[in-house]
Amino acid sequence: MPMQGNLFAALPPPGADETFDTLFEHPQLRIERIVSDGHASPEGFWYDQTQTEWVMVVQGEAVIAFADDRREAMRAGDWLTIPAHCRHRVESTGPATVWLAVHVESASRP
Amino acid sequence: MPMQGNLFAALPPPGADETFDTLFEHPQLRIERIVSDGHASPEGFWYDQTQTEWVMVVQGEAVIAFADDRREAMRAGDWLTIPAHCRHRVESTGPATVWLAVHVESASRP
Repeated sequence: MPMQGNLFAALPPPGADETFDTLFEHPQLRIERIVSDGHASPEGFWYDQTQTEWVMVVQGEAVIAFADDRREAMRAGDWLTIPAHCRHRVESTGPATVWLAVHVESASRP
Repeated sequence: MPMQGNLFAALPPPGADETFDTLFEHPQLRIERIVSDGHASPEGFWYDQTQTEWVMVVQGEAVIAFADDRREAMRAGDWLTIPAHCRHRVESTGPATVWLAVHVESASRP
């Protein structure tokens, strides 16, 4: 696990798969860079996570859809907290979209 | 605690005090926005934190100095992990510098 880096370093080329890089890891949390390039969750797929996620769009744009039909259009600097088991999917992303995600174990975990 | 926001919203005006805003809080961690505007740690002051800190410069620039004389010049996207009790100070910051800091309780905490 590197101790330092740059969030915009070694971005995958356009058209590459969505990438996930762990920047920091700890028993209670993981900080991750996600790079999307027009990616979306598969049709009908919903994330249903056991962890709380705090996520920010650092560069680019995206739309997150929630199971209650709410949609959040996100641009650079927009962040939101997604509680554990709050079903959501990535409806769309723009080119070269860089996310910072903090995945947090639920406080009730034994 | 708001569930969403924008990291660049409601930036303090130039010349204001350094500001600290909690974006997410959990028993094991706290995510914070820090806005510096030419601020530096007081001369001779060292942070000596019981928590591990993962910190990124999102906008602007800064220099962090460590007690072992190491210096890190940070620009947008640069992040680093500062272990607990790793003494450091903010030597300088540029105008309108926006940090994202994740303060993590040490794993050994009872």
